[in-house]
Formats: sequence, structure tokens, C-alpha cells
Amino acid sequence: MLADEPGKIAKTKAGWIDASVPLRTGMVHWPDNPPVRIERMLDIEHGDAANVSTLSMGSHTGTHMDAPLHFVRGGKGLDEMPFEATIGRARVIEIHDPESVKPDELRPHRIRGGERILFKTRNSTRRWYEEAFIEDFVYVSQEAARYLAAQEALTIGIDYLSVGGFLRDGAETHQALLEASIWVIEGLDLSQVEPGEYELICLPLKVERGDGAPARAILRAISKFEEGRIPLTIADRILKASRR
Amino acid sequence: MLADEPGKIAKTKAGWIDASVPLRTGMVHWPDNPPVRIERMLDIEHGDAANVSTLSMGSHTGTHMDAPLHFVRGGKGLDEMPFEATIGRARVIEIHDPESVKPDELRPHRIRGGERILFKTRNSTRRWYEEAFIEDFVYVSQEAARYLAAQEALTIGIDYLSVGGFLRDGAETHQALLEASIWVIEGLDLSQVEPGEYELICLPLKVERGDGAPARAILRAISKFEEGRIPLTIADRILKASRR
Repeated sequence: MLADEPGKIAKTKAGWIDASVPLRTGMVHWPDNPPVRIERMLDIEHGDAANVSTLSMGSHTGTHMDAPLHFVRGGKGLDEMPFEATIGRARVIEIHDPESVKPDELRPHRIRGGERILFKTRNSTRRWYEEAFIEDFVYVSQEAARYLAAQEALTIGIDYLSVGGFLRDGAETHQALLEASIWVIEGLDLSQVEPGEYELICLPLKVERGDGAPARAILRAISKFEEGRIPLTIADRILKASRR
Repeated sequence: MLADEPGKIAKTKAGWIDASVPLRTGMVHWPDNPPVRIERMLDIEHGDAANVSTLSMGSHTGTHMDAPLHFVRGGKGLDEMPFEATIGRARVIEIHDPESVKPDELRPHRIRGGERILFKTRNSTRRWYEEAFIEDFVYVSQEAARYLAAQEALTIGIDYLSVGGFLRDGAETHQALLEASIWVIEGLDLSQVEPGEYELICLPLKVERGDGAPARAILRAISKFEEGRIPLTIADRILKASRR
């Protein structure tokens, strides 16, 4: 069952941890992006037969993904993303730098081609999705973005609304990642996730020619028992072969 | 890779079939629900640094899920759904009745407690999500809904916008399923899915106290090689035990 009291770990019986932030009216969003409004437009309490809501938000709201089309003219839409990008083994790497992800901190982690990497930064020490916009969140420096592109990472994720900084490395970082066809997950809540190896499932809405879309992302620790077994490794073996 | 030409099977290298319909402006929706509007509000073609869109739609748009709160006063929101409801083994059952799912057609399938059942009906013979609203879609009769509740199905899915009919068995079917805590997936595209056993992943957006939310749903056939192996069966064993 999911957490039913605040602060309780959102871990299900099968071990899934919810790394997605809740969507609600008025929640934080990127400054020039649309606000989030969720309104009950049919309401049982007002005599309607059912509860139905209107959802209005930007395509880069809460936990979401970026398609190349977000920053690349004529790039792929999110509806063209292969599921291998976000279903399979992922590594959660803790970032200690309080400003940004930098190549020097990444190198010892020996990131390999085809890896899915999620950065757990200082952002995850606060419930940022319940606060106002934070300008000094930890982002991926443009140097680190180019490093990740050179390492041929498949997918990367970060625990605030953008991989690029605020008024700093925004376009550069996005372009370095998206031009390298790296799939990007933003707005993760990694507060309940320790660094290590996980099984990742992240599914974005199928928005036609989407520059991005809200997504649900969940993680499950890979136990010794499951290590090296299917179906994770089948997908990963196919993926590896396809990238050579 | 996902399909890049219409009509091509949306099957990825790892065998995932996308059972979600694309979201686009003006697409079909339930008559009294909000329209779907997706507009590029920042546009590289117009000189902006990035492409960003505004998404506006009802909570029961396209491929989506219903929470008990949709029809049950004070019921659970979709953000309280356990992931076991939509991750694990599922059975796709073909329905031949051109009007509705009825108990007589269900009985021979021997639905057991804890099962995830997706109904592939006549609805899947057309690309309904590209057409205007269809009044005579195949729905789940209220008798079948009560039968599924009695069998203690865990989750059911259907290949049109509602489990209930148009002006017929709408409230009754929803209430019978949702009051029995059956999780409901609607708006599936099962045109590329043969009846049989599958691995299902369906993740809805995490809308706080959501009566429903758009979702992404994917299926993968369970091969003989994978049959009976983890991680599917671990989740299912735990689930089974928890329901006794």
C-alpha cells in the first residue's frame, strides 16, 4: 500500500518506491511555464453523479520527461521514446556538490554506455514540490552534460524541475543531453531512495509530438536474489546489443 | 523503437506493446467532460529558446484510470492506488458480444480473485480515439460488474472511454466495481493485442485526491521462458497472500 500518513515511506508490498511528486493546484513550476490547476468540475458533494476534474498544467510539470523536441528543432517527440529508455536497471548516484553535478564528481562512478543514471542531490533533502520556486537548486553543469553525452548514457534523471540551472547552463545542458539523444527525467523525489542499483519504471503520458510530458516514476531495489535474472537483463542485453 | 508509421505495431525491442492512445487537441472525450487542448506556448519556431506546451484535459481523458472517488463519496483517490493493482500478470479476454460484457460470456473464463483482466471488445476494431464520440461502444453491463466484484477481480480494463455504457449502466457499473475496490483502466487501445497472458504496467499520473488521471499502459506477452519466474510472481504471490 502507498503511504497514508505524511513522512511515511511510499513503499508498496512489492517494494516499489514512488519517486513521483503529487500534482496539485498552485504547486511550484518553472517561472515562465503555465500554472498547475486541478479543479473538480463535476462534484458528488454538489449533487453531480460523479467526481470529474479538469487538469491544466505545463508539459514540464512535477515529475516529467523531456523529449529532444524540447530544445532540438525537429527533434523526436516524447511519443517516440523507446520503453527501454525508462524501464530497466538504473543507478542512483549521490551528488555531494551543493551547486551542480560536475565531471570531477562523476568520473569515479565510471558511467558506462547505455546506463540509466539518476542524480540524488541536496534537492532531495527538502520537500521542494511543496515550496515556492528555488533558484539555487542543484543542476547538471554543461560540462557534466557533455561528459554524460560522451559516456553515452541512455537516460538521466534529477530531483528538481530542470537538469539545467536557473539563469545558468539552461539551454547548454539541455542541448548537450538532448542532442545526444539522452532521455531526461526531471522533478523526481529521491528523498526515500538510497544510492545504489534499482529497477526503474518511468512512464510519461503519450502526448502527440510532445516536447515533454508529466510522468509517473517508480523504483525498486535490486536484491541479490533477483540480480542477473530476467526480465530486466533481457531488455538490457537487447539494449546493449542494439547500441553497439 | 515505437511505431513511426501509422498502422505499424507499436512494439519495442523488449516486446512492450503500447496500449495507450495518443493525446492531442480536439480528441474524443466523454460528452460532459472537458475538451483536450494541447498548445505550444513557447515555440522554437517563433524564436523562443525551447518548446513548452500547455496541457488541458479532463481527468478521464484518453487512456486513464478511475479511482473509487470517481463514484464513491469519500472513496480512495488514485494517489492511494497500490502499484500491485497495475503492475503484474494480466489476462486479455476477447469479448464477442457486440453490446456489452455479460456474465454468461465471462463464466467460462473462470476469473479468479486478484486477477487483472482486460476486455478486448469490438471497440478495438476501430481507431476510436481518432473518431467522434461513439454512443454504442461495448461496455461492462452492471450484471457483469457485480459478477467481477463477486469474483474479487483486482483490476479491470476496457477499450473505450468508460466501463459503463452511454445512458445505460453508467453509474451502476462504476459503483459496482469501485465500491468493490476494483481498479479500473479505461481508454485502452487493444487493437495490437491478442487474447492471452501478459505482463502489464499501467501508471497513472499522481494527482492528489484524484478521481481519475491519464495513464500510460503497456503490455508484454509472457513467454514460456519467463513463465513462473520473478519478479512477476513474487508480486503476485504477495498479492495473493494479502487478499486471503
